[in-house]
Amino acid sequence: MSLDKVLAQIDADLDASLERLKELLRVPSISTDPAYRDDCARAADWLVNDLQSLGLAAEARPTPGHPMVVGKGGDGARHLLFYGHYDVQPVDPLELWHRDPFDPAVEETADGKVIRGRGAADDKGQLMTFVEACRAWIAVHGELPVKVTMFFEGEEESGSPSLVPFLEENADELSRPDIALICDTGLFDPETPAVTTQLRGLLGEELTITGPAMDLHSGSYGGAARNPIRVLSRIIASLHDDDGRITVPGFYDGVPEISDELRAQWAGLGFDADGFLGAVGLSEPAGEKGRSALEMIWARPTCEVNGISGGYTGDGFKTVLPSKATAKISFRLVGEQDPHAIRKSFRAMVEAMLPPDCSAEWHDHGASPASVMSTDDLAFEKARQALSDEWPRPAAFTGAGGSIPIAGYFKTILGLDSMLIGFGRDDDLIHSPNEKYHLSSFHRGIRSWARIIDALKD
Amino acid sequence: MSLDKVLAQIDADLDASLERLKELLRVPSISTDPAYRDDCARAADWLVNDLQSLGLAAEARPTPGHPMVVGKGGDGARHLLFYGHYDVQPVDPLELWHRDPFDPAVEETADGKVIRGRGAADDKGQLMTFVEACRAWIAVHGELPVKVTMFFEGEEESGSPSLVPFLEENADELSRPDIALICDTGLFDPETPAVTTQLRGLLGEELTITGPAMDLHSGSYGGAARNPIRVLSRIIASLHDDDGRITVPGFYDGVPEISDELRAQWAGLGFDADGFLGAVGLSEPAGEKGRSALEMIWARPTCEVNGISGGYTGDGFKTVLPSKATAKISFRLVGEQDPHAIRKSFRAMVEAMLPPDCSAEWHDHGASPASVMSTDDLAFEKARQALSDEWPRPAAFTGAGGSIPIAGYFKTILGLDSMLIGFGRDDDLIHSPNEKYHLSSFHRGIRSWARIIDALKD
Repeated sequence: MSLDKVLAQIDADLDASLERLKELLRVPSISTDPAYRDDCARAADWLVNDLQSLGLAAEARPTPGHPMVVGKGGDGARHLLFYGHYDVQPVDPLELWHRDPFDPAVEETADGKVIRGRGAADDKGQLMTFVEACRAWIAVHGELPVKVTMFFEGEEESGSPSLVPFLEENADELSRPDIALICDTGLFDPETPAVTTQLRGLLGEELTITGPAMDLHSGSYGGAARNPIRVLSRIIASLHDDDGRITVPGFYDGVPEISDELRAQWAGLGFDADGFLGAVGLSEPAGEKGRSALEMIWARPTCEVNGISGGYTGDGFKTVLPSKATAKISFRLVGEQDPHAIRKSFRAMVEAMLPPDCSAEWHDHGASPASVMSTDDLAFEKARQALSDEWPRPAAFTGAGGSIPIAGYFKTILGLDSMLIGFGRDDDLIHSPNEKYHLSSFHRGIRSWARIIDALKD
Repeated sequence: MSLDKVLAQIDADLDASLERLKELLRVPSISTDPAYRDDCARAADWLVNDLQSLGLAAEARPTPGHPMVVGKGGDGARHLLFYGHYDVQPVDPLELWHRDPFDPAVEETADGKVIRGRGAADDKGQLMTFVEACRAWIAVHGELPVKVTMFFEGEEESGSPSLVPFLEENADELSRPDIALICDTGLFDPETPAVTTQLRGLLGEELTITGPAMDLHSGSYGGAARNPIRVLSRIIASLHDDDGRITVPGFYDGVPEISDELRAQWAGLGFDADGFLGAVGLSEPAGEKGRSALEMIWARPTCEVNGISGGYTGDGFKTVLPSKATAKISFRLVGEQDPHAIRKSFRAMVEAMLPPDCSAEWHDHGASPASVMSTDDLAFEKARQALSDEWPRPAAFTGAGGSIPIAGYFKTILGLDSMLIGFGRDDDLIHSPNEKYHLSSFHRGIRSWARIIDALKD
């Protein structure tokens, strides 16, 4: 079966592929906000219909949260499981978008054409690269040369509460493929594709400190009453030492130093730390002293505050002493760090720091360990070659700072190794206003999957 | 002229007085929020109409902000200036109110009847005690035994931006009274009235820290990018030392120790620190080590955070590294502390703490020094006697933790001494959900002013 014809079909059909993607991007499937529940279901249904139009047996499977989309088709010696997620991040602050986040469009930029809209890069645009590659194979050859199981989640941006139970309940069905393909990562640089082989884990915690039983007037009580914002600030300030190391007891247990071999490979990538930081208005890596920026984001654990609120935050001024203050705090984990042990140690450390008359309330926002792939499977080398054939520069095995817990679950629940291959760029503004996906990411991404399907079919 | 008849008239007219107060409380005159601008004007107009119905020459005088209400009438040897404010605090968090904050009602509580609603105690209920006392005098005697100038402000809860210019422009007219009466303070305890003779000043600052140029994904950038919430938390944590003292350089310049005489008088008041704190769910004074709770709130300066925000604060979790974080910070000042010098020193201290790639943006929310009254004027002793005649226990000269900058401006711009007399209680929940004013505060408050007018008329 000819790969060239498939690639030509992809090129010829690109405009229609884009229109399909834009349809999906118009659905505001924000999974973390209950107000968008129906939109998440609509996005799932859109995918089911699209997969059915390719002749796949597809359905939206209900969960206590948002539905899972499962689609099956194709035939051949090999069986690939493909994963993406159809839910997206919230869009606030909305006033910083230069267009409606759910009215996507192709825009000309100094850096080429981009598809602008929430979810363009994370992860609807990526997910559709695989669907479009399958569409082209089927259009040219009438069928796929491999068995395919597509598995699209709708809760990736909200801690994936239904994922583990769903995988466990359907392990029999979903463990049949030979390997998993996960499309939720990025290129190394605009010319260099990557197979991501190590991913950080994620521990999410929400901490609310309560001091007085009610909001107080800072004139009447200021000086005598405990202020929970000050208490929370002291706690946050104490989470890092002056060298940028995290002070939670036992936090660094299981954090490995990267191997000399990988260090050498990474050094050879010529990562442009100045450019990486400069693109977002920064000039100095802000993490642990003595580590490179690439280490900080790929191979070192972190503790960050993702949100804080307390007291009066509207226009003007209100001299209130608030009753409560809240922070959302996340840890990125590497190597063998145990998220549950760290949660326990973190909470104990905070409770021990509480001054009199203060209490802490906790809300668990998920916990997943880091993933480190074994690249022994021949499929890794075949995929690296297929990617190298498509892109200007050879593909690399890289790390990634983000957390894609699904890779860990595929391993532990389904027994599947995962290949993490994606086409995003660092400046895609995922999770931020004005998210975009380069048209070349989309186009070459589709072509890359066509090549990988071809390479893995035997 | 008989005082007894006036007091009897007050008792007979109480229900109608309450209905008038409720009318005024229904107007949501939140001065700090531009959305309520028209309501502030409506509250001013309501007062003008009410004063006119008493035969006073009253008008709402425009300012660049909300209008000032000025009303004049009465005749006699003495001329009193009366001050109150008709604007109120915002009502959030609205869900903690057990009734609509602008649908006031008299409620039975374990502690007697209260008037529930935003502004009931701060300051509409207090302001109306004086108006109702004048109404009773006029109803009984056909006229007031003193000249009266009423002066009601609509920007007290939002930093009083128009106050100083207005006083300066109208100094000729407003400086004619002999003394000012300010009704915006509280009783010492439910049985003991107070003339407040020292008030803390207030410095308000809003600080926004910017790190990255845009919100970032904490997976892609976490570890390498500067997090402004962490920077802000470190700054806040550094503002107090372990003894609760404020670390801004020069902050304690001009902070006096209270005199032995005043310390003895205050000790004699039998202030119930446990009860004061216990009422709001606290057990330990949280201020400077070695100071009593009463000193902390009346005689010591503070630094508090009144609001903080940054990153994602909605439901669920968003792994964002925010571009900005903001805090509203206020300082209560005593003695001769110079708010402008402290602002300068505070800003310099913060700027010096900023790590690389961070900038600070400042928003000034007002600055007023502390006020310490001279109690030599005979009027102070006459008023104390009149209050002692009305209430179960003799009146005291006390301090107050809140800031009422107007007393300082009356002194410096109009040359007037002020007597600060009010009837609020510590548990009135001013600035908080479920604000209330005791019916006895309102009723005895009206009677108190009738007595004070009588005592000061000669």
